[in-house]
Amino acid sequence: MSAELEDIHEECGIFGVWGHPDAARLTYFGLHALQHRGQEGAGIVSNDGGHLIGHRGLGLLTQVFHDEKDIEKLRGDRAIGHVRYATAGSGGLDNIQPFVFRFHDGDMALCHNGNLTNCQSLRRALEDDGAIFHSNSDTEVLMHLIRRSVRGTFVDKLKEALNTVHGGFAYLIMTEHEMVGALDPNGFRPLSLGRMKNGAYVLASETCALDVVGAELVRNIRPGEIVIVNDDGYRVVQYTGLTQLSICSMEFIYFARPDSDIYGVNVHTARKRMGARLAQEAPADADMVIGVPNSSLSAASGYAETIGLPNEMGLIKNQYIARTFIQPTQELREQGVRMKLSAVRSVVKGKRVVVLDDSIVRGTTSKYIVSLLREAGAAEVHMRISSPPLKYPCFYGIDISTTKELIAAKKSVDEIRDYIGADSLAFLSLDGLIESIGLNADAPYGGLCVAYFNGDYPTTLDDYEPAFLASLTEEDRQRLPRFARDVSEYNGNEYQVTTDFE
Amino acid sequence: MSAELEDIHEECGIFGVWGHPDAARLTYFGLHALQHRGQEGAGIVSNDGGHLIGHRGLGLLTQVFHDEKDIEKLRGDRAIGHVRYATAGSGGLDNIQPFVFRFHDGDMALCHNGNLTNCQSLRRALEDDGAIFHSNSDTEVLMHLIRRSVRGTFVDKLKEALNTVHGGFAYLIMTEHEMVGALDPNGFRPLSLGRMKNGAYVLASETCALDVVGAELVRNIRPGEIVIVNDDGYRVVQYTGLTQLSICSMEFIYFARPDSDIYGVNVHTARKRMGARLAQEAPADADMVIGVPNSSLSAASGYAETIGLPNEMGLIKNQYIARTFIQPTQELREQGVRMKLSAVRSVVKGKRVVVLDDSIVRGTTSKYIVSLLREAGAAEVHMRISSPPLKYPCFYGIDISTTKELIAAKKSVDEIRDYIGADSLAFLSLDGLIESIGLNADAPYGGLCVAYFNGDYPTTLDDYEPAFLASLTEEDRQRLPRFARDVSEYNGNEYQVTTDFE
Amino acid sequence: MSAELEDIHEECGIFGVWGHPDAARLTYFGLHALQHRGQEGAGIVSNDGGHLIGHRGLGLLTQVFHDEKDIEKLRGDRAIGHVRYATAGSGGLDNIQPFVFRFHDGDMALCHNGNLTNCQSLRRALEDDGAIFHSNSDTEVLMHLIRRSVRGTFVDKLKEALNTVHGGFAYLIMTEHEMVGALDPNGFRPLSLGRMKNGAYVLASETCALDVVGAELVRNIRPGEIVIVNDDGYRVVQYTGLTQLSICSMEFIYFARPDSDIYGVNVHTARKRMGARLAQEAPADADMVIGVPNSSLSAASGYAETIGLPNEMGLIKNQYIARTFIQPTQELREQGVRMKLSAVRSVVKGKRVVVLDDSIVRGTTSKYIVSLLREAGAAEVHMRISSPPLKYPCFYGIDISTTKELIAAKKSVDEIRDYIGADSLAFLSLDGLIESIGLNADAPYGGLCVAYFNGDYPTTLDDYEPAFLASLTEEDRQRLPRFARDVSEYNGNEYQVTTDFE
Amino acid sequence: MSAELEDIHEECGIFGVWGHPDAARLTYFGLHALQHRGQEGAGIVSNDGGHLIGHRGLGLLTQVFHDEKDIEKLRGDRAIGHVRYATAGSGGLDNIQPFVFRFHDGDMALCHNGNLTNCQSLRRALEDDGAIFHSNSDTEVLMHLIRRSVRGTFVDKLKEALNTVHGGFAYLIMTEHEMVGALDPNGFRPLSLGRMKNGAYVLASETCALDVVGAELVRNIRPGEIVIVNDDGYRVVQYTGLTQLSICSMEFIYFARPDSDIYGVNVHTARKRMGARLAQEAPADADMVIGVPNSSLSAASGYAETIGLPNEMGLIKNQYIARTFIQPTQELREQGVRMKLSAVRSVVKGKRVVVLDDSIVRGTTSKYIVSLLREAGAAEVHMRISSPPLKYPCFYGIDISTTKELIAAKKSVDEIRDYIGADSLAFLSLDGLIESIGLNADAPYGGLCVAYFNGDYPTTLDDYEPAFLASLTEEDRQRLPRFARDVSEYNGNEYQVTTDFE
Repeated sequence: MSAELEDIHEECGIFGVWGHPDAARLTYFGLHALQHRGQEGAGIVSNDGGHLIGHRGLGLLTQVFHDEKDIEKLRGDRAIGHVRYATAGSGGLDNIQPFVFRFHDGDMALCHNGNLTNCQSLRRALEDDGAIFHSNSDTEVLMHLIRRSVRGTFVDKLKEALNTVHGGFAYLIMTEHEMVGALDPNGFRPLSLGRMKNGAYVLASETCALDVVGAELVRNIRPGEIVIVNDDGYRVVQYTGLTQLSICSMEFIYFARPDSDIYGVNVHTARKRMGARLAQEAPADADMVIGVPNSSLSAASGYAETIGLPNEMGLIKNQYIARTFIQPTQELREQGVRMKLSAVRSVVKGKRVVVLDDSIVRGTTSKYIVSLLREAGAAEVHMRISSPPLKYPCFYGIDISTTKELIAAKKSVDEIRDYIGADSLAFLSLDGLIESIGLNADAPYGGLCVAYFNGDYPTTLDDYEPAFLASLTEEDRQRLPRFARDVSEYNGNEYQVTTDFE
Repeated sequence: MSAELEDIHEECGIFGVWGHPDAARLTYFGLHALQHRGQEGAGIVSNDGGHLIGHRGLGLLTQVFHDEKDIEKLRGDRAIGHVRYATAGSGGLDNIQPFVFRFHDGDMALCHNGNLTNCQSLRRALEDDGAIFHSNSDTEVLMHLIRRSVRGTFVDKLKEALNTVHGGFAYLIMTEHEMVGALDPNGFRPLSLGRMKNGAYVLASETCALDVVGAELVRNIRPGEIVIVNDDGYRVVQYTGLTQLSICSMEFIYFARPDSDIYGVNVHTARKRMGARLAQEAPADADMVIGVPNSSLSAASGYAETIGLPNEMGLIKNQYIARTFIQPTQELREQGVRMKLSAVRSVVKGKRVVVLDDSIVRGTTSKYIVSLLREAGAAEVHMRISSPPLKYPCFYGIDISTTKELIAAKKSVDEIRDYIGADSLAFLSLDGLIESIGLNADAPYGGLCVAYFNGDYPTTLDDYEPAFLASLTEEDRQRLPRFARDVSEYNGNEYQVTTDFE
Repeated sequence: MSAELEDIHEECGIFGVWGHPDAARLTYFGLHALQHRGQEGAGIVSNDGGHLIGHRGLGLLTQVFHDEKDIEKLRGDRAIGHVRYATAGSGGLDNIQPFVFRFHDGDMALCHNGNLTNCQSLRRALEDDGAIFHSNSDTEVLMHLIRRSVRGTFVDKLKEALNTVHGGFAYLIMTEHEMVGALDPNGFRPLSLGRMKNGAYVLASETCALDVVGAELVRNIRPGEIVIVNDDGYRVVQYTGLTQLSICSMEFIYFARPDSDIYGVNVHTARKRMGARLAQEAPADADMVIGVPNSSLSAASGYAETIGLPNEMGLIKNQYIARTFIQPTQELREQGVRMKLSAVRSVVKGKRVVVLDDSIVRGTTSKYIVSLLREAGAAEVHMRISSPPLKYPCFYGIDISTTKELIAAKKSVDEIRDYIGADSLAFLSLDGLIESIGLNADAPYGGLCVAYFNGDYPTTLDDYEPAFLASLTEEDRQRLPRFARDVSEYNGNEYQVTTDFE
Repeated sequence: MSAELEDIHEECGIFGVWGHPDAARLTYFGLHALQHRGQEGAGIVSNDGGHLIGHRGLGLLTQVFHDEKDIEKLRGDRAIGHVRYATAGSGGLDNIQPFVFRFHDGDMALCHNGNLTNCQSLRRALEDDGAIFHSNSDTEVLMHLIRRSVRGTFVDKLKEALNTVHGGFAYLIMTEHEMVGALDPNGFRPLSLGRMKNGAYVLASETCALDVVGAELVRNIRPGEIVIVNDDGYRVVQYTGLTQLSICSMEFIYFARPDSDIYGVNVHTARKRMGARLAQEAPADADMVIGVPNSSLSAASGYAETIGLPNEMGLIKNQYIARTFIQPTQELREQGVRMKLSAVRSVVKGKRVVVLDDSIVRGTTSKYIVSLLREAGAAEVHMRISSPPLKYPCFYGIDISTTKELIAAKKSVDEIRDYIGADSLAFLSLDGLIESIGLNADAPYGGLCVAYFNGDYPTTLDDYEPAFLASLTEEDRQRLPRFARDVSEYNGNEYQVTTDFE
């Protein structure tokens, strides 16, 4: 938790298991490890050898599954599950995944992490052709494309559908005979395959969910890949040759759990390197370093070690989630924020402190953190941010949808510093970020998507493009690179990559 | 969270406010800051100038108050509230506090943190005299004593009642005309008075709850004191002269929030000193120090600084609370524990680690932590505990009720080390603990209760004595000091201590 | 349903069984047969041979017991239960019965049908002596009196308590070793003992509940009697010799189920006789007779047979219970009433109809019924009421608590006729009522309480007397008989009446 | 209630209003009047001038709408609603109607009473063409057909769709600009149009729902008609010329409320005529007539008047709905049935009684009723059924789906009489039924569907035909008429019938 205390949300986490008698229970464990990726709804669909059985609801996983019976009814040795973050207005039970579809030729379940850029136009075209949608989510579109494909096999239909949708996506599909994962051509969102001791296969948004069920990492699913798991093992198929890795850099900065590895890079370690690099780029003359819990504790530790200052626990996060509804007046709203974070007076009193946070979104919480530390007696407050200023929206699965809410889209670093009331303020450089993460993929920005920092989107924006362009200043419009450098067109060049059962 | 990952629980937190138009809302905020003291139930009773209005329920505060209306109906500028940990078998809505009593001569509400040692005998005597109880809780006993007192004023009745009950207690009472707090003669549990900017008074179990509503500390309530708040201000009355401070040392070790101060000692700082002292008493030849999150991070930091090793984030706690019901088999039970805690492989791999925890209760979780770190590749695991071995039960408000569950009651340190599988194990000494906390009160053990470590109970055990003695070995029975050194008898010597409105 | 479509409510029904392995289930069946006596809450307490287990809740029986588990957990071969009508303001779970009391010397459960006239003064006196009440109900008072009695046995304590409370009551008590029923000295409310084929004993408010479990009537409990059921059988004890039967005449007119017998008089048959008598007292020149469903169908049949007119189904009652909340405007309120009752146009069109109802309370629903029939085309509407005008409140367990709401307390029969818009209106005479019921007990009014009709209350009114007298006109005050003709004083003359196990 | 105490269920009721500021509230009232047509789920969708807003849930209407807010949120002056009976296995929230569909070109809502005979094949064909279904209900099929139609206007698309589906249906559709009702070519289910005083139009399954909102009947919707209501008024369009009235005779016998009129025939009056005719066809030498409440009271009254015997209330129905789950043993199951019905001993004791019921389904309840009356002392029990023996399933919206459960499919009248233990048994003749109802339409059986009595189905059975034929005896197969005498084929001959706004 931070990204200025949760002003930015991930849009989902997915988990599936094939071949374990306690499949639904393991999915519950796996989703619990992914709960940070979505707290507004959860669901699990099991497969008892043909028939799919589902349970889903609004709220945290533990609220949705509040009775042993909720798990027990999910019979079968295969299951997929989903935790969801619902953007305002798109809530409601109808949108909770996995979706279950019952056809005369068999059941299917589907869930999704990401965001499509051409969803609205696809949806409209499908509706004009007689399709009926039952949710607001992007997810249903894929199923309509699959079902309308005239190709022969399910995997062929799926390939066609995946080449029709644009944007960021990690899909997880359960049919009667297989569990299938699929990643977009840029690999915006992480997806990993693991294997349990009993031979069961597991697919998960993050490796921390593999760990929690005791599964070993087999392979990170790569851009443009489909992974198919069935009773014979798994096999990987590429549905497009035009791929280019652009994994979301915010996964490293803020979203992912510190104990997860993404393409072999440990998240905690990457954050610690960001802090260390920031100490070099923007040192501060102070008495101690304080991280905003929890997501910035790693960076704070790297900063402190590098600069040679003690890393102190000057801010405490309340481990119980607070409600925001109880905040009618301005005075009470501020007291509401106090519920999340407290300063430890005896630690910071009279001290010059460096506060590490992972990003600044609106700036209002940063302003509050500074005042909290000053009230607790801090002599100086130096704010350090372990990522570059957030200036542009994301269209691939993070809920930064307009630039209006981003303080760095409108103010310079000095203006932000004045607004939040810090004695000094510095952000990590874009190069610093890329080098700290150290993916080093053979792709722009070392394989990272950094569009929210520099506006360089790795794909066409499709349905979002007109409104986005209209939101830009003339200057920005000139300066920004053209979208979609070279990927995302279907080239028909499919080939099977690897398999464990041949 | 630790005390071996929550095997020990505090039994309650209390909060009250007098004189603020948003009294119920502030009580909600205050209780939220005290949620770590009890998660099984919560309630608030407001006072709209005569009539008491209550709302209470099972579960977390945010579950009990899930609608703005739940707060809005609690009209009035005075309120008291309670969060409760329910020991097994004593759950149920009937026991959720504050209790509201409606008499023809006015309403009263009452809540309580602590445990009485003579509750059963008082209850039986009262029943034999016609009293009818409606809950299992100790709390009701006090109201029966008050109502049966033939003294003149409410405060006089209360004094008589407080001199009749024995054990550990912090009471909070709301009548139509005043809010009253009362502490036992040993001050086992903390209770502080604060003042808001608008002049409203606040009573809270911990100072972190004063901070969250922006109140300044006025005074720590001391052993044997009653504090009475009404529209004229507050006044403190002592109901007994035979007092002796014995505040629960586990408040410093584990229960209280790091940002709370108890009698002027900051909890985080005390824990850091425990870690530092432990580094001196029991250094380890290792590569890094790791604290078990969250309660042992402070001690780990003290240990690391003193011994000169890096303090690393090698263990991650899932910030979402897991359910325990989904654990039918041994294999799955272990996976259930994995839901709480994960090791960061890239941090610990190949390293010799010192793990700091605050205490060992049953040892099973410590055993799991050691294996978790070894699985993640740790070369050596040295366990250090920032308190002495837990050997005896508590009768004053912590749920360690029998010695059977305490591994240190049966095994030596070497045997425990073997059981948990660590390369080495050391506990902080009792002197080290007392000096690290540094209360330095003019009372045995510097004003701390350390009975769970050495069996030296500062009061008679009353109803608990026979069973407790029977549970001891002959040797222990010889060695233990007699209970109740010199306090807890009513001497009739009442005097008013201080006031702000004369 | 009628009493002007449920403007008057019974206050409770009680049921108990001793000696059947499915005791809780049978109690569920029995309470279901008594559901018409109270719809706002229900509860069952079972006894598994010492320990009492309870389940209770707000709403209809089927809402409170909505899961097989709710019954299964109520182990044991003995149980008592209660359905409750909650008067406005006294609702809430705390008041749902049976109440369970847990004492160090054993559990007890208690439930109650009726109303005490000296409850407030007893409650106040008990509170002044240290008693603490947890509900608003009259029921708790009895338990306090029992527990404070210094007599030797439970039955002796109970006798003392029963001689202290005044008014109307049927109590049902479960202790560890016996089930006890008790009736007030006037027998205001019915209570019957039955025996099942397996030898189990059953106590119930009405005989229809005996029928539903296949029990044979053993005996109607009589005024001033205690019946004690245990493993040896049953025995009846009289706790006072000063008794005089005054059973509530509204039980015959409206409350009780048509298939119940009260002191051997079948309720349906009594109602039919009321209708027949009314036909003699107030014939009408019409084409057909229509009863207001359901309670007036019997009387309509008697009226029709006697006068020689067809008895037609001209009014239909919706068998699903409507909600009243959805009625914000006057227009919609009227439509809300339409939800309960509909006229059958093709039956009444062009016809002169006699409408039979059991009573007129406020008159507003009668007015609506007349207009409903006229809208459906009735040529003439003659209203006939099978009881005398309701003029005075009841203090023994029916919720007619003030005369203000009773139209007959303020208006003459002609004025009421004009208000409701009928072509003619007539009420049954008091003598007609008494003779139709035909109890013929050796007591005033043949053993009936008819105080709501003539103000002749068979007991002192105690706490209610001042307000009641103040509500009367001077004329009424002169005319009314003195209360409490000759009973309700404890004379110490106890003797055992009968038994089946000597 | 009867049809042997609810062994047969109607499958739905629909209600809609256009042009009243309290549209949702009126729909609530209307559905309440139709609650007898379906108790397992309910929903309302309002239209606030473009946007559709819905609320639906499982259970009775009053359970689904349990808060004023549930109605208030349904803004707008137009609404449609539905009450649903869920056949076993097809329950669940997903199937509760009205369904809301949100398209880029506008929202639509749809609900349905009836059953399609070619649903499975249509559904399969649609799926094979890419359609995705989200429920098990027949209802969705129509929307897919509408959306896939390439015709120009919505009404044209609807006409095409209605000519594609076969079977029994009354549809109610809400678009942004109109409310549309549609009836199958045989008019199996009733549907009526009414007008309120303020000019609002109402569509309802039964006229009793028009009455409850104070609407006057405008017109019964006839076979093959579409009625379109919008701000200009209403207009009726016929979508096929091949129509033939075959309204479900069970609507008259059992389902519809007695105060409803169907094609001008009052239901109560028709039932009374059935009883009268039965008295002529099968008189009994007895002392009294008793109707099984509630549905057979009308027939009992007709029988009694004609034969000259008193019509007595010898059976009482508990007006509170019982739960069936609490019936583990045979003994208790019988006691469970007692919860529904009681005999009035004092009425029937020593008497020869004629019991009127509307039909015999399985016979088990009839057997119980006979034994109940005998236990209550009846000297003779003569059972009379006011409809012919039920021998064949219904495929148009009643849940008699197999002949296996129908006792009359396997046993002769004498055998049934022996099974139920009556002294005599007689059924109304088919001619008697048709003449008693007296629709006299120019169609076979006077415009009634009587297929459950004689196997003469007025349409092809489509998907149901193979299994139905297989369930028949060879003899029956020979004897039965061919299905689908002459209607239900689309002839393209559409013409507008009537309108009020030209």
